[in-house]
Amino acid sequence: MHDAGDRNHRILFTHRHGKLLAPEDFVADTTAVPTPGPGQFLTRTIYLSLDPADGSPAGDCGETGGAGCVMAGDTVAQVIESRHPAYRPGEYVATRSGWQQFALSSGQGVRRLDAAQAPVSTALGALGTEGLKGYVSLVYLAQPKPGETVLVSGAAGPVGGTAGQVARLISARAVGIEDSLEKCEYTVRELGFAACLDSAGADLAARLRGACPEGIDIYIDSLRGELLPFVAGQLRREARVILCGMGAAYRSNELTLGAVLERLVEARATVRGLVVQDHLERLPELIAVVGGFIRAGTFHYREDITEGLASAPAGFCRLLRGESFGKALVRVAPERL
Amino acid sequence: MHDAGDRNHRILFTHRHGKLLAPEDFVADTTAVPTPGPGQFLTRTIYLSLDPADGSPAGDCGETGGAGCVMAGDTVAQVIESRHPAYRPGEYVATRSGWQQFALSSGQGVRRLDAAQAPVSTALGALGTEGLKGYVSLVYLAQPKPGETVLVSGAAGPVGGTAGQVARLISARAVGIEDSLEKCEYTVRELGFAACLDSAGADLAARLRGACPEGIDIYIDSLRGELLPFVAGQLRREARVILCGMGAAYRSNELTLGAVLERLVEARATVRGLVVQDHLERLPELIAVVGGFIRAGTFHYREDITEGLASAPAGFCRLLRGESFGKALVRVAPERL
Repeated sequence: MHDAGDRNHRILFTHRHGKLLAPEDFVADTTAVPTPGPGQFLTRTIYLSLDPADGSPAGDCGETGGAGCVMAGDTVAQVIESRHPAYRPGEYVATRSGWQQFALSSGQGVRRLDAAQAPVSTALGALGTEGLKGYVSLVYLAQPKPGETVLVSGAAGPVGGTAGQVARLISARAVGIEDSLEKCEYTVRELGFAACLDSAGADLAARLRGACPEGIDIYIDSLRGELLPFVAGQLRREARVILCGMGAAYRSNELTLGAVLERLVEARATVRGLVVQDHLERLPELIAVVGGFIRAGTFHYREDITEGLASAPAGFCRLLRGESFGKALVRVAPERL
Repeated sequence: MHDAGDRNHRILFTHRHGKLLAPEDFVADTTAVPTPGPGQFLTRTIYLSLDPADGSPAGDCGETGGAGCVMAGDTVAQVIESRHPAYRPGEYVATRSGWQQFALSSGQGVRRLDAAQAPVSTALGALGTEGLKGYVSLVYLAQPKPGETVLVSGAAGPVGGTAGQVARLISARAVGIEDSLEKCEYTVRELGFAACLDSAGADLAARLRGACPEGIDIYIDSLRGELLPFVAGQLRREARVILCGMGAAYRSNELTLGAVLERLVEARATVRGLVVQDHLERLPELIAVVGGFIRAGTFHYREDITEGLASAPAGFCRLLRGESFGKALVRVAPERL
């Protein structure tokens, strides 16, 4: 239950004032906490996931009466009141209730979480759709063999961190690429990557050759393909390239196709695109396998937590500027009933 | 046997005088017809294949004493004198004896041809490595299902013509792209393509949508990827794109990667590069399957024949200017013992 005086704090998107999204582009308001009708339950948000894909809030205006829209976003929440036969107060769920404290649900698109298996926040990272991207890209699309070299971009993030660590745990050799030395050191020291290259440094191609002296068997691209020209030059025969970044983000890649295509043909390479929504039926497998690694202490992840819903716009803009380190979350409420 | 007075006419490459290769860049000479030693046989060239890939004659100078090099090239030839236990005079072989009338061989890299199965010239086209490219790209890499739409570039040529006709014969729907209306009409009328688009015309994307209203399941690229941006926009879910053009030619593609990558991901597409030398063990299968179609009259091909070795430079330059129509061959000698 919530306190009788509680209001539902929300963050709405207004419009983009400048070239880049800024905290001023959002506005906070409060509404009454809604009351569940038959077949509904009320949730209180605990963690809100910050995702670049949610940068455009269109299409979520149906729930708001005002001029703006409640920002869309994946959340981990707790059921606090229920008139739904399958959900009881106290249960944790992964849902998509957006940038607000309270929300009603009919159970559609909701996934129940077992807090005893893993910290519930992992449902938005390593044990959620981002971890699933890395896991399915690696295991089912790329199909690594023991000893193969697996190169992973965004290696410190939830997609790359999952792909790289699972590669290591199934006897492949994980090499990361990240955008800062600090993140690179983290992937080697904490995540067990064999090496990690700072994409901001000079002479990336030469360093890549040094880190992958026998060439690259698998490349998991969780960004937007900007490293493809470097990677393509060093693909081994029968290499597999998996594009699992944000589809629309790839559009902004202005690199030239030619050299990449030539090397794909020479290497007899396979390039495959992944859309994680096609693979949601493997979430229980991800939770069993990677959740097991987490409990065994052989798999690690990092969260970049912004405290309080009011700070969500600032945290989101930090993420878009590439300044977050680990899965970007907002702690909207403490984990208690 | 050859006549006692015969000389071996040859075409040597000298050097490129202008920006584009021209007949003046070649020179003809004659040498003595060589005599086979033990384990060797002498062949007389019947057909010489003209291939853009042979445009750079480097590496073939070992056989010549002069300043230039005999141009490299695949050939169909007849054994006319033999001290090799496995080859008898009169037999037809596919070999790589280059731009000359006579050559010695130890049998290495030589394939015996059965003139009763199919015209021997097909060993340089539909029943040779070019046909094999189209066949393996389609059947083994793309794996078409009945009713799927297979788009083929270079549809009137030996690679595309094979891929498209085999697609039709195994119940897929073949749509071609060619660089002239005349070639387009040929692929529809003679090769049985459902439609063919002139790549030189305006509004290719719109015409592609018209010809493939349900989208493209398979795209066989036998050129250098220049149509990928058009094709990528209309790929269906789980589409397969096979790049079987010349590896090095892809390098000259200056199109932008971004939009193509975005669509590959959205379509969950697979892109694979093919190098035909990896698949030579399937030549007997190609000859059995496509040779059977040819004998049954359900598969057609076209040859663009230049008469006489002396005209090979002119024919080759015509090919490089994109003016040939069908598999480009030089008839060096008539098909007789």
